[in-house]
Amino acid sequence: MNVNGLPTRTIAPLPDLSGATIIDQTRLPFRYESLTLRTLADAAEAISVMQVRGAPLIGATAAYGVALAMNEGVDLDPACATLAATRPTAVNLAWALARMRAVLAPLAADERRAAAWAEAAAICDEDVALCQAIGGHGAALIRAVAEQKPGPVNVLTHCNAGWLATVDWGTALAPIYAAFDAGVPLHVWVDETRPRNQGASLTAWELKQHGVPHTVIVDNAGGHLMQHGRVDLCIVGTDRTAANGDVANKIGTYLKALAAFDNGVPFYVALPGPTIDWSLDSGRAIPIEERRAEEVTCIAGETESGAVVTVRVTPAGSPAANPAFDVTPARLVSGLITERGVCPASHEGLLSLYPERR
Amino acid sequence: MNVNGLPTRTIAPLPDLSGATIIDQTRLPFRYESLTLRTLADAAEAISVMQVRGAPLIGATAAYGVALAMNEGVDLDPACATLAATRPTAVNLAWALARMRAVLAPLAADERRAAAWAEAAAICDEDVALCQAIGGHGAALIRAVAEQKPGPVNVLTHCNAGWLATVDWGTALAPIYAAFDAGVPLHVWVDETRPRNQGASLTAWELKQHGVPHTVIVDNAGGHLMQHGRVDLCIVGTDRTAANGDVANKIGTYLKALAAFDNGVPFYVALPGPTIDWSLDSGRAIPIEERRAEEVTCIAGETESGAVVTVRVTPAGSPAANPAFDVTPARLVSGLITERGVCPASHEGLLSLYPERR
Repeated sequence: MNVNGLPTRTIAPLPDLSGATIIDQTRLPFRYESLTLRTLADAAEAISVMQVRGAPLIGATAAYGVALAMNEGVDLDPACATLAATRPTAVNLAWALARMRAVLAPLAADERRAAAWAEAAAICDEDVALCQAIGGHGAALIRAVAEQKPGPVNVLTHCNAGWLATVDWGTALAPIYAAFDAGVPLHVWVDETRPRNQGASLTAWELKQHGVPHTVIVDNAGGHLMQHGRVDLCIVGTDRTAANGDVANKIGTYLKALAAFDNGVPFYVALPGPTIDWSLDSGRAIPIEERRAEEVTCIAGETESGAVVTVRVTPAGSPAANPAFDVTPARLVSGLITERGVCPASHEGLLSLYPERR
Repeated sequence: MNVNGLPTRTIAPLPDLSGATIIDQTRLPFRYESLTLRTLADAAEAISVMQVRGAPLIGATAAYGVALAMNEGVDLDPACATLAATRPTAVNLAWALARMRAVLAPLAADERRAAAWAEAAAICDEDVALCQAIGGHGAALIRAVAEQKPGPVNVLTHCNAGWLATVDWGTALAPIYAAFDAGVPLHVWVDETRPRNQGASLTAWELKQHGVPHTVIVDNAGGHLMQHGRVDLCIVGTDRTAANGDVANKIGTYLKALAAFDNGVPFYVALPGPTIDWSLDSGRAIPIEERRAEEVTCIAGETESGAVVTVRVTPAGSPAANPAFDVTPARLVSGLITERGVCPASHEGLLSLYPERR
């Protein structure tokens, strides 16, 4: 999507394959700075300090990390081990490394470098195609609303499932970009998404850079807006989808789904097929990560003088709890938007798009 | 309630009636500082810059403002006019001034001073008695839960309807203090309550000072906690109650009520009878204030070095919307806790406690 008017990906190889350029996402939304990864160590650092985040982008960065290791003459095994250790629980990280290893291991040492860069590029292009397909299917839903009402379609989203979390397009935001680029009038309500504020920072920044009309709201506000007819549909992402259509996503998603259901507002979840966990019968089995209390008690922002500082918002000594995700039951989900189309949030619905899982 | 181990009211006259002491609530939770109001101008300033906030406390401060004016020899009419102009939409402010005027106007000039201090004290004592009665009725609900489960009763609250908003006890927190003081084991989940963070700052501070076990959570977390059986009941306050039992309260209350309903968690609203608006058939008619966008885009907190600063958390130029309240329909409310007892959230329920309104 666009940054300062220029089409941009979250990760891109240099033309001479001497490095890969990323956006330092730890600096957003206050600073937009690119970094060039030139070594395996650079790539590992970028993943571990979260200069790159979002499952697809972490996988892509790991793939380029292997390519950079080949530039340096580092062996495949230690390169993969270094990258795998950066964020041990990231599923896409392990997946991308396994794929790179499968392609490179059979090759002679002098063939690996070119193959690594080609495979990393393929991983990125496939992710873009997947997100673009989600965008196309979801944009049709937005367009259908636009054809039935005057004025812009109001879409509410939670957290950041935008292009910053992928290589391009995003998942939940892909339908919004696709509809916007096609000229469908729309406006996005951006939940700030406490505690880490990915909405207020990353989603608002993305939408602003691409020129998409949007308004930031606190996480408390969406229900009221739905009660008053000011939300036409919701689209959120998901970290993990159970085989029955239950979805785990950023904490607070469940509350918005309840409000949407209570007010007859369609609630869609956008996801790449590979994130469906067919082994999970229901979302109840999804373990919910409890993160550091400091994410709740402290907030980073920019002062009037332009310094980025962290402030504590609670009384010293008051404890905080920080469950990172919640599970939205399938009964509250109007449909799942995948790269293969839109289906009901149910086992039968998913099987209709992924019959190979029958 | 207690501050630093000492029973404290939010406003109290000096023994020699030369002033009234308040807590500078603009400094909480980072600084606990008392101020003594010695003049009418001091009282007007305290109300207008929100050193005191909460409808009952604003009324009490206005009453003492009139008493201070009598100390200074200011006439009754200009004194009331000055105080009335501080926060023109505050219902309790107008009510307290009308009451002071009704008592003082018939008196000779030399009798007014003593009468003003006595009437202000009576207003405060009546507010305390009202909140204490709410506390007693609500504590019985908490005790009933405690008798049916092992371990502490987990109560979730939203915003600050605590003693800081009243003279003492509070409304939603009064049942919690009453149960806690009676030895009922309990723990409070404190919604941080964006955008103004009254939960993370004021409610957490109050509970901590009084020694009540509590945990701050982001507004997104309550639904997940209820899904997992970690909330036994919710108690919130309300700014305005319609005659059918619909309640207007801080933005986000509706989302918690939906989650409570979805999970079978009792959801109570605590309110003083005088805040019932018998002229309103339903909550749909309650106008919702839209406040400044800066409350969403900026957050105040304390840096590591102890400075209190305001930081912006959104990209420069991203707009924000800020509806301040939402309306929770009576169908989601398990009961209303008033000074006269607990009743169903319905017109019939309210009439059962306030038969004089038939």
